[in-house]
Amino acid sequence: MADKKIKVGIVGGTGYTGVELLRLLSVHPNVALTTITSRGDAGLAVADMFPNLRGYVDLTFTDPAHSNLEQCDVVFFATPNGIAMQQARQLLSKGVRVIDLAADFRIKDIATWEKWYGMSHACPDLVAQAVYGLPEINREAIRGAQLVANPGCYPTAVQLGFMPLLEAGVVDISYLIADAKSGVSGAGRKAEVPSLFAESADNFKAYAVNGHRHLPEISQGLTAMANAEVGFTFVPHLTPLIRGIHATLYAKITKSVDLQALFEARYADEHFVDVLPKGTHPETRSVRGSNLCRIAVHQPQGSDIVVILSVIDNLVKGAAGQAVQNMNIMFDLAETSGLQIVPLLP
Amino acid sequence: MADKKIKVGIVGGTGYTGVELLRLLSVHPNVALTTITSRGDAGLAVADMFPNLRGYVDLTFTDPAHSNLEQCDVVFFATPNGIAMQQARQLLSKGVRVIDLAADFRIKDIATWEKWYGMSHACPDLVAQAVYGLPEINREAIRGAQLVANPGCYPTAVQLGFMPLLEAGVVDISYLIADAKSGVSGAGRKAEVPSLFAESADNFKAYAVNGHRHLPEISQGLTAMANAEVGFTFVPHLTPLIRGIHATLYAKITKSVDLQALFEARYADEHFVDVLPKGTHPETRSVRGSNLCRIAVHQPQGSDIVVILSVIDNLVKGAAGQAVQNMNIMFDLAETSGLQIVPLLP
Amino acid sequence: MADKKIKVGIVGGTGYTGVELLRLLSVHPNVALTTITSRGDAGLAVADMFPNLRGYVDLTFTDPAHSNLEQCDVVFFATPNGIAMQQARQLLSKGVRVIDLAADFRIKDIATWEKWYGMSHACPDLVAQAVYGLPEINREAIRGAQLVANPGCYPTAVQLGFMPLLEAGVVDISYLIADAKSGVSGAGRKAEVPSLFAESADNFKAYAVNGHRHLPEISQGLTAMANAEVGFTFVPHLTPLIRGIHATLYAKITKSVDLQALFEARYADEHFVDVLPKGTHPETRSVRGSNLCRIAVHQPQGSDIVVILSVIDNLVKGAAGQAVQNMNIMFDLAETSGLQIVPLLP
Amino acid sequence: MADKKIKVGIVGGTGYTGVELLRLLSVHPNVALTTITSRGDAGLAVADMFPNLRGYVDLTFTDPAHSNLEQCDVVFFATPNGIAMQQARQLLSKGVRVIDLAADFRIKDIATWEKWYGMSHACPDLVAQAVYGLPEINREAIRGAQLVANPGCYPTAVQLGFMPLLEAGVVDISYLIADAKSGVSGAGRKAEVPSLFAESADNFKAYAVNGHRHLPEISQGLTAMANAEVGFTFVPHLTPLIRGIHATLYAKITKSVDLQALFEARYADEHFVDVLPKGTHPETRSVRGSNLCRIAVHQPQGSDIVVILSVIDNLVKGAAGQAVQNMNIMFDLAETSGLQIVPLLP
Repeated sequence: MADKKIKVGIVGGTGYTGVELLRLLSVHPNVALTTITSRGDAGLAVADMFPNLRGYVDLTFTDPAHSNLEQCDVVFFATPNGIAMQQARQLLSKGVRVIDLAADFRIKDIATWEKWYGMSHACPDLVAQAVYGLPEINREAIRGAQLVANPGCYPTAVQLGFMPLLEAGVVDISYLIADAKSGVSGAGRKAEVPSLFAESADNFKAYAVNGHRHLPEISQGLTAMANAEVGFTFVPHLTPLIRGIHATLYAKITKSVDLQALFEARYADEHFVDVLPKGTHPETRSVRGSNLCRIAVHQPQGSDIVVILSVIDNLVKGAAGQAVQNMNIMFDLAETSGLQIVPLLP
Repeated sequence: MADKKIKVGIVGGTGYTGVELLRLLSVHPNVALTTITSRGDAGLAVADMFPNLRGYVDLTFTDPAHSNLEQCDVVFFATPNGIAMQQARQLLSKGVRVIDLAADFRIKDIATWEKWYGMSHACPDLVAQAVYGLPEINREAIRGAQLVANPGCYPTAVQLGFMPLLEAGVVDISYLIADAKSGVSGAGRKAEVPSLFAESADNFKAYAVNGHRHLPEISQGLTAMANAEVGFTFVPHLTPLIRGIHATLYAKITKSVDLQALFEARYADEHFVDVLPKGTHPETRSVRGSNLCRIAVHQPQGSDIVVILSVIDNLVKGAAGQAVQNMNIMFDLAETSGLQIVPLLP
Repeated sequence: MADKKIKVGIVGGTGYTGVELLRLLSVHPNVALTTITSRGDAGLAVADMFPNLRGYVDLTFTDPAHSNLEQCDVVFFATPNGIAMQQARQLLSKGVRVIDLAADFRIKDIATWEKWYGMSHACPDLVAQAVYGLPEINREAIRGAQLVANPGCYPTAVQLGFMPLLEAGVVDISYLIADAKSGVSGAGRKAEVPSLFAESADNFKAYAVNGHRHLPEISQGLTAMANAEVGFTFVPHLTPLIRGIHATLYAKITKSVDLQALFEARYADEHFVDVLPKGTHPETRSVRGSNLCRIAVHQPQGSDIVVILSVIDNLVKGAAGQAVQNMNIMFDLAETSGLQIVPLLP
Repeated sequence: MADKKIKVGIVGGTGYTGVELLRLLSVHPNVALTTITSRGDAGLAVADMFPNLRGYVDLTFTDPAHSNLEQCDVVFFATPNGIAMQQARQLLSKGVRVIDLAADFRIKDIATWEKWYGMSHACPDLVAQAVYGLPEINREAIRGAQLVANPGCYPTAVQLGFMPLLEAGVVDISYLIADAKSGVSGAGRKAEVPSLFAESADNFKAYAVNGHRHLPEISQGLTAMANAEVGFTFVPHLTPLIRGIHATLYAKITKSVDLQALFEARYADEHFVDVLPKGTHPETRSVRGSNLCRIAVHQPQGSDIVVILSVIDNLVKGAAGQAVQNMNIMFDLAETSGLQIVPLLP
């Protein structure tokens, strides 16, 4: 049985997406966790850094230079932007499949990527080849992909919320608004003053209103869905949650349809997208720790404005869980394998 | 000097707006706290219920039936909706001025009020006479008012944010959106499951998307500013803050103007509205405990969408502080008297 | 395979221990969730009350009067104190095994129980028969038990922390101190003002210093371990966590031993008690959502005072998880069945 | 009038004690804020870093090299440990009085200080001259002091709690325990991973159990009160509060006295120490933002153990507020001047 397990490597496992991958993969029935690298913490037992993993992960961080990543079946990059594009080609050339949880392969237009990420891209050809790993729209392409660009957290919540509307062509695409709120873990496990408890607890603020890196990623996706350029305003906010994204989406209806039925039909076969009953309000905690996206559809006061509420756990469906979902698809496992997790409430 | 102090009574001091009035009035240099009533807690020392007031407030809750409210110069109603309308007439007839922190006198159209608040109005004539207590637009009327309807918390943050745009006629008034986020104290000091710590901590959700009671109040105000009926969508959210409202407002620009200059000019003489430098993001904690509203103006990516960020402390500028500001105006005190409070940060 | 599953009923599933039982049991491989009762919410779909369970639990609350609890193999009582003692006898008489998560069967001395819980006990004979469900000390008795008294949350954390010291007789039992801190979910899903977010967030306090109901339960356990009456001081505190208990225990060492080795030996075979390396500090989040108790042993500054730090998730090892552990033992399942949950961090 | 104001300088105003000094001093009626220095942020407007101060503080951080600190009447050091000892002598030589909020002058025994703080002391003679700024025990010495060592946060809460017991000689001084809990602002405004929101929210842990720097400071104070060496165990914990310390103190009673009366008598004339009624439990929020210490006395179950509950705001009575209180004493102002702040609740 053990020889059938997928050998998994993780590059850069010291951030929140890394520890979340470990939480999910350490009890995944079809996975053998093989290698986890960290330049800075090589030699340290993973469970010494993340005590929740004591008893579940007995790996030690290894130096990337001495890792055996090339013997893995798949390697996840849970690294800062700009790392995977340096290392993916060699792994791919050895037949190792790659899932990048950072942004290196998400945006097809290289100039756009370079503008927003402030660096030259190391391998534009791989960008062309990469598959954007949003299973609800790209499942078949993911199945055969060697290189998957795992979507960003905001882009997952926002695209899943707008998708049925844009595909059906029932809203004015020139004036789409996403007012999104994220928990502080979205900023990563980086020592920065604005992410301190004493700075972000009991506090709420917008940030990057003039332009967040997830804006071009979302615009690319919405434009593909609408098959036309969209006018899109994106305002992210920081809210005192550990985990969770709540996207509130606004659009003007141009064609009268049963919106509830539209959403239910679109996601009828999607295990990880749950369309709630009409008139309800999804809570971020209702997906805490799970790979679910829950969505509710509103048309307030019978006006011509549709309001979509879309929640995910930014570290799961917005990062590590979606990456595992992609792995499951790539290796012909049950898509829910290792992801049957009841959200933690309260 | 003591004989010059304003004699103040409070009806219903056991909720959060009540204790906040006490925090502000107990150290207000021109106020003599005279009476505070509570039917349920008569006989209890106020400081036994609210230990922060030990040493500052030595009043005991008195039964409304035996209070001497009629000897006060002004009475604040910090009661549930529907109480002030029963008791205001008698006080007014004795020359006592009244400030209602609830909603009884906010909406001029009686039918609208009755629909949203689910009861018959006891005194429509007093509604006509009442002055809506938003000083930034109604200062002169407030000065002479006998009866002030103190605005709601969301309405304060939203109206102050939209006001310069609507007065100047520079946005499309058919498609105004307010995505507002409130701390849990906004739900009051009521024992209800959704307001429990274990329910609302580490959680974020929208609520009342199909219609919140503050919607008609805001619509009334925006319509007055625009001098035409507005199309307005209002989505409130609950966020794990104790205090604070953050309103994110969206509108389509129809006339090119220097928005930053427009806002700075409009609020140049307003002590309690602070227009932040262009491109900044106000935090709710930057107004915590104070009567300030801080506003920032954005035009993301140079598009024709204006995004206004407006923050207040829901218990101060959104309730008790604004009520004190109204009292200061009514009694010809310095408008800032008792309200020179530096926000608590961190 | 399905016919081998244990048929499980839950009485009173609308509180936090109830929803936590459902979270654990809905994905337990050896369990068929059969019935869940609620007098007040009969007819309501469980997942409508607890949206995290959508897709995992499709039961509806049934009225206790019309439930088929007697056809279950085991029934959990997740009810307020005083309910299980009214209903256990009939179930036991039908051969249904019973696990009570409340306090009805925890305290052997009936007079003591009646004093602390303020009611007459309905079935003292069943108290005598009941097994106290702390597996780390009572495993064999639990295996054969018909009626299990699941320990309280504080008692679990405190007893597991003191146990090795008292069993080994190495501390002064006349002066034991437990300074314990609990998350707010410990107060249950009850609408009470002190548990409101706006009351308990950003706040810390002790409570019930003069006597908490868990005091006699812990004293009974410590006395049994020490085989002599102990002098025990217990001070519980409320801390702004959703979940988690941290017990800090103090005792005076009377006999020089290697304390670290003592603890490691005592818990060497216990899957759910994790003795941390010397000098470390367990965090409550390191057990969040899991059935683990993590313990660290300190002897500050080489003095003769031993300080034990013991953390659990109050809803899991302190309630529902320990109940499932007991069920696993009673039905000869692997003790970890359904409880292999990696704690959620961050 | 302005010429009578005390000219105040602050060294190192970019941390939490710095911004808190500014909050208090900017509205202090007898203070003229003159200079605030920061090496790293010279040239930046203070209110750009701390937006709560907009409208209250219009100073700009100046480089220490070009500041005019010597023209101040008093200079506060809100710096890391080891800075004030380098700069105090020169200021003192010019007649400038100095209040150090760091630890440089708190511990009289130089060897002890050097061991715990890991550096050589630059001016042992000034340590001898410095007055420990706990007004409740040292008021007269403070009045004439040129150099005040402002106490640490834990030491303030713990010493005020033990003081009446030790001065009266009614407890066993060989076995004193302080189990203390602090909010995260106690760690300062430093970018460090353990202080991140996603690390410290919904989490509770002990830290530094084997030895915290406040241990020798507290021991020195307790020993002085008891006039004999004490056996003292100190266990600090991190709790998800922004502000607040709750110290729970344990001691064995050796002499029967009316403890409540003892505490009330000891603090009868102390404005900032509030002895609560017997049997109550102070909350940290009941002192939030204020200079108060609230204390409750318990003797659980009538045993011979006394439990003292002592709460302060770590940034006010535990730092900046106490420093202002010391300044008021030094300059013969009313001790409460600028400190009449009603705690913010909720």
